[in-house]
Amino acid sequence: MKILTLDANELSAACPMRESIDEMSRSFALLAKGKVQSPLRTRVSAPGGDILVMSSLVKRGRVEGSVKVVSVFPQNRGKRPSIGATVLLVDGETGEAKGLLEGARLTAVRTGAVSGLSCRYLARKDSETLGVVGAGAQSFHQVDGIVSELRGVKKVKVFSRHRAKSKAVAKACARAFKVDARAVGSVGECVRGSDVLVTATASKTPVFDGRAVEEGTHVIAIGAYRPDARELDSLLVAGSSVFVDSREAALEEAGDLLIPMAEGLISKGSIRAELSELVTGTKKGRASSSEVTIFKSVGLALEDNAAGWLAYRGALRRKLGKWVEL
Amino acid sequence: MKILTLDANELSAACPMRESIDEMSRSFALLAKGKVQSPLRTRVSAPGGDILVMSSLVKRGRVEGSVKVVSVFPQNRGKRPSIGATVLLVDGETGEAKGLLEGARLTAVRTGAVSGLSCRYLARKDSETLGVVGAGAQSFHQVDGIVSELRGVKKVKVFSRHRAKSKAVAKACARAFKVDARAVGSVGECVRGSDVLVTATASKTPVFDGRAVEEGTHVIAIGAYRPDARELDSLLVAGSSVFVDSREAALEEAGDLLIPMAEGLISKGSIRAELSELVTGTKKGRASSSEVTIFKSVGLALEDNAAGWLAYRGALRRKLGKWVEL
Repeated sequence: MKILTLDANELSAACPMRESIDEMSRSFALLAKGKVQSPLRTRVSAPGGDILVMSSLVKRGRVEGSVKVVSVFPQNRGKRPSIGATVLLVDGETGEAKGLLEGARLTAVRTGAVSGLSCRYLARKDSETLGVVGAGAQSFHQVDGIVSELRGVKKVKVFSRHRAKSKAVAKACARAFKVDARAVGSVGECVRGSDVLVTATASKTPVFDGRAVEEGTHVIAIGAYRPDARELDSLLVAGSSVFVDSREAALEEAGDLLIPMAEGLISKGSIRAELSELVTGTKKGRASSSEVTIFKSVGLALEDNAAGWLAYRGALRRKLGKWVEL
Repeated sequence: MKILTLDANELSAACPMRESIDEMSRSFALLAKGKVQSPLRTRVSAPGGDILVMSSLVKRGRVEGSVKVVSVFPQNRGKRPSIGATVLLVDGETGEAKGLLEGARLTAVRTGAVSGLSCRYLARKDSETLGVVGAGAQSFHQVDGIVSELRGVKKVKVFSRHRAKSKAVAKACARAFKVDARAVGSVGECVRGSDVLVTATASKTPVFDGRAVEEGTHVIAIGAYRPDARELDSLLVAGSSVFVDSREAALEEAGDLLIPMAEGLISKGSIRAELSELVTGTKKGRASSSEVTIFKSVGLALEDNAAGWLAYRGALRRKLGKWVEL
């Protein structure tokens, strides 16, 4: 069999952000129609970290399967990336392996696309300023997803405890997206005046005081993915309209919601809609220009599948990648 | 990251059968010591077949992870192989992907190695004649595993309903293993006089009359892997000493045992030992030259891990395979 391999840069070139957002929208609509299978994630635990396997089968025109293997190895810090991933694409018509993709970039791109898609339903159309808390591997792609969807966003503020990293992210964003992007010196400065606010950190505790969030803001929290970790504080969550990528996954993994639930401040019913309901119009998104919306995303195998197959098809069309005979 | 890819032929060259059998023995000993994690297999169902994911983490000198993606697509029949597989090797110390292996060959080799290992404990040392029922992708590697372990086996009989395929397998075995191998015209002829008898078919019902099996035979059944499918009849199973690769897996999947259990002819206690107990000496294998032993193997993620990492290390040493930058 011949397998197309895409490294991180080939992958980015093969799935431009606007196409990724639209593909994500179509894939969440297929989820609503029952065209998606995703078995429970499996996990093995090594001394240095965990290896997770997330697979998905989606009935598009063709049936398309994906298996992502993600390694979360905090002890790599410094020496090599603490998160590594690889995605295998499997043709759901024949069972043949078709593609092998660098998965850390794929994860960043698909998460950016999902955040961008959330803005279609949840951000104010007149949003101009984006605040990003965190300057890791996700931040650049979060900005990409959000400015691709909200064309009026011209100002980007980046905050992280590592000033050099915030500066590097701001510089890369300014160059790539033609926006006024800069690193700011405090998280308060990042929150203040932001119409869209993203948290993309490895923190296990709230990264800013929720009372500082202004009316009408759309908050996107993508960093925490364990029941005991969160980036947003309970008061902010309790006072906002909450949306998720998937109810089921959020209720399993999203400490941002599970902790205020355990405190009795919100309930399962406080989740106003999941993304598949927004894209199909079953549920409404933002209801007024003053409400604060929160989009909590934990990441789904479906999202890897959507971005992965988009990249595969895009790479074939653009003649990107390297073939390996297996 | 740099990933080593091995196609089917590179894989065979990288893990010779005798090394594979010894590696399998070491890996089953590690299983006995609690050094192996294998989450439940996951499955998605496409219209044309199933895609299964089997992963495993083994603490050897290093910690070594593997994820096998297997497609079982019966409707491919004729056009392309109905079973396709790919194995990703993940370094359990760092989480990095290290290898991508053609998985159908890997599966055939590791299953052959496990069958060979079973002979170490269960076949008569003076075995001379091997009968193989089935002439699919597994048969050649079954013969490889068994003649590598039992050096006295000089005669091999192959039976399948497809005479041309049996002849091709016999010819390949004669050439590769310097044995007197030939296709035989009936399953009875295959069973008669065989000291070791392998069933490696896609049949869901018994492939021969168990009463024809002679005293002292070692029967290896590898073809059936669903609770409702079997290659051996109930009377043969009830009258033999039964061994398995894994009790837990056999009690989930092995119709060869589950059907006679449902009939009340054998019980869970009829399984005399699993492979890890044989290799560590906790349980004894063949007890007399006259008993009929059955080794029922359904296939474990541990076996893919063992053969996959052996192949990876072997390929590095022998400079085999192609590198791809991901």
